[in-house]
Amino acid sequence: MDELEEFRRYRERMNKRILSAGNLGIKRFFALDTRAYEEGVLPAKTKELLGLVASTVLRCNDCITYHVIRCVEEGISDEEFFEAMNVAMIVGGSITIPHIRRAADVLGQCREKKRKGQPVDI
Amino acid sequence: MDELEEFRRYRERMNKRILSAGNLGIKRFFALDTRAYEEGVLPAKTKELLGLVASTVLRCNDCITYHVIRCVEEGISDEEFFEAMNVAMIVGGSITIPHIRRAADVLGQCREKKRKGQPVDI
Amino acid sequence: MDELEEFRRYRERMNKRILSAGNLGIKRFFALDTRAYEEGVLPAKTKELLGLVASTVLRCNDCITYHVIRCVEEGISDEEFFEAMNVAMIVGGSITIPHIRRAADVLGQCREKKRKGQPVDI
Amino acid sequence: MDELEEFRRYRERMNKRILSAGNLGIKRFFALDTRAYEEGVLPAKTKELLGLVASTVLRCNDCITYHVIRCVEEGISDEEFFEAMNVAMIVGGSITIPHIRRAADVLGQCREKKRKGQPVDI
Amino acid sequence: MDELEEFRRYRERMNKRILSAGNLGIKRFFALDTRAYEEGVLPAKTKELLGLVASTVLRCNDCITYHVIRCVEEGISDEEFFEAMNVAMIVGGSITIPHIRRAADVLGQCREKKRKGQPVDI
Amino acid sequence: MDELEEFRRYRERMNKRILSAGNLGIKRFFALDTRAYEEGVLPAKTKELLGLVASTVLRCNDCITYHVIRCVEEGISDEEFFEAMNVAMIVGGSITIPHIRRAADVLGQCREKKRKGQPVDI
Repeated sequence: MDELEEFRRYRERMNKRILSAGNLGIKRFFALDTRAYEEGVLPAKTKELLGLVASTVLRCNDCITYHVIRCVEEGISDEEFFEAMNVAMIVGGSITIPHIRRAADVLGQCREKKRKGQPVDI
Repeated sequence: MDELEEFRRYRERMNKRILSAGNLGIKRFFALDTRAYEEGVLPAKTKELLGLVASTVLRCNDCITYHVIRCVEEGISDEEFFEAMNVAMIVGGSITIPHIRRAADVLGQCREKKRKGQPVDI
Repeated sequence: MDELEEFRRYRERMNKRILSAGNLGIKRFFALDTRAYEEGVLPAKTKELLGLVASTVLRCNDCITYHVIRCVEEGISDEEFFEAMNVAMIVGGSITIPHIRRAADVLGQCREKKRKGQPVDI
Repeated sequence: MDELEEFRRYRERMNKRILSAGNLGIKRFFALDTRAYEEGVLPAKTKELLGLVASTVLRCNDCITYHVIRCVEEGISDEEFFEAMNVAMIVGGSITIPHIRRAADVLGQCREKKRKGQPVDI
Repeated sequence: MDELEEFRRYRERMNKRILSAGNLGIKRFFALDTRAYEEGVLPAKTKELLGLVASTVLRCNDCITYHVIRCVEEGISDEEFFEAMNVAMIVGGSITIPHIRRAADVLGQCREKKRKGQPVDI
Repeated sequence: MDELEEFRRYRERMNKRILSAGNLGIKRFFALDTRAYEEGVLPAKTKELLGLVASTVLRCNDCITYHVIRCVEEGISDEEFFEAMNVAMIVGGSITIPHIRRAADVLGQCREKKRKGQPVDI
């Protein structure tokens, strides 16, 4: 099983466990989280870029993985990706570089999957 | 003198002092910082939104003040502003709220200045 | 007007502006924020201590001010306050000390108000 | 060997190496760290919850693993755990979710060990 | 009263209040904090630079103010100061710039005081 | 293949991918990053210590690994290493401890390699 698929399954399994624990506040937060990225006056792609850059400057690899996959689903180009990463790198400094490596790695894996006709989803 | 003008002058005065200190690395970083937000495959407005959301989740009021002013220069609407702030709030949590208050305050001051025909710049 | 009253008014005024902007996601997040601290299997005082320590290690003075006031409303003793601050200081290091100074300052102002028969609320 | 046991051993081995290096300041800090969570006017369980929530908003998986194990030793219930995680999620935002997944995973592993009659300790 | 003197007095007054609260863990942490910067195999000036850069990337103005004053006491040159700030800016990104402005401002105030024959201490 | 060699190769491979993407801002930032640690009025070893402590308080394992290797190349002693780690631990708190474990682990691996006559480089 590839790395992205492993991530997807662990995330799904743990989200299920957390959501089944009966804490209403947590459930509602998960719902708000999904809605924040839906198309509005800002396009969904722009919102995913906002999520990706926020995740990069806060340096969370799992969040980066999620948002790179979503950006690919929204049709991001390599140039758009690296311009956004440049903003993240300037704002957040060299401490973000290991996470930009991770983001570039995930982007590469997504492109590879597409080329092989495999689904890229989350 | 109003608060935004005071911010602009302090920022300008200190940047001048830092840049005149003769450290080449710092000078070049300042140049890269400016260029990262220039129009590319991503529009300047999108890049400013990326900078604003990154500054909000990292919770830096001076950076927020700067990027709100730049967003206004790029013609951001109130709805776009609050959709971006919603993403920042979801990613960064309630700890970002005092900074979102600050951002909303600066946005209000910019709108007020525009109504009075005063310049909004940085 | 005292500092805590000034804080309360600015917070109230900006919250009103943010909530009146018509962004549903932001409104709902504010509601979840309030509910997270309501009495549950954990007492309200414990939850406020969790909020205070979280705010201290994340180093947000406005959040600290808010949670110290709420802790006082829940009847926190000085000893409980400093034991919680000790945990925050150990987890977060000396970088939290300026914020622990702030927390101790706000606690002192709250105690002073109580002694004068003035309301301590948020 | 299971994941928690592996964590315990690596932690023990490296702590030993660090403490044997002869730096007095580091040794004393380790002692203060232990004492901060001892029963005082606040119960040990409350202090562990403070440590867990602080570790979650600061997003440190090893610290989370440690405090979840300690919370289980102090007899935390699932409901108490998720109420504390709700506070952490609200304060720290969606960026904490991967770490809340980790916390829920460790909690599950501890419960599983208990059911099998295996020791849960650190 | 000048800004640095105001900072010094508030810091002193609040430290006194915190230390008189009778929490032994907090008292001991303050002692460790002082000792960590004492001359060892690393010179005191190097340790103060470590404290200054750590405070800058963590973006704490009060900590920056303290360590700039201490660096001046240890005889730091402007060139050394800006080389250290360059490292902080590269590691921490543009989000550190407002704090580097603050550091440069404090350095300027210290130099000014020295020129006037006023004491620079903390 | 050992862990440090694996780190070196992944880092090299991903840096190559990022630098070949044609984003000029990113390329220039990488160049500035390298130059910031070159011998100046501050010795290269001091600058590497600044980078190591900054990486530790910001809690980035990959950055820590890189700077520990560089510190070894610059001839750091164990005592210097632990004095710097003590400053990082005091400033950053117990949340840095898992990363100080990592740093001590990498230092041990570097010392081991040297003893076996293997190269320690990045």
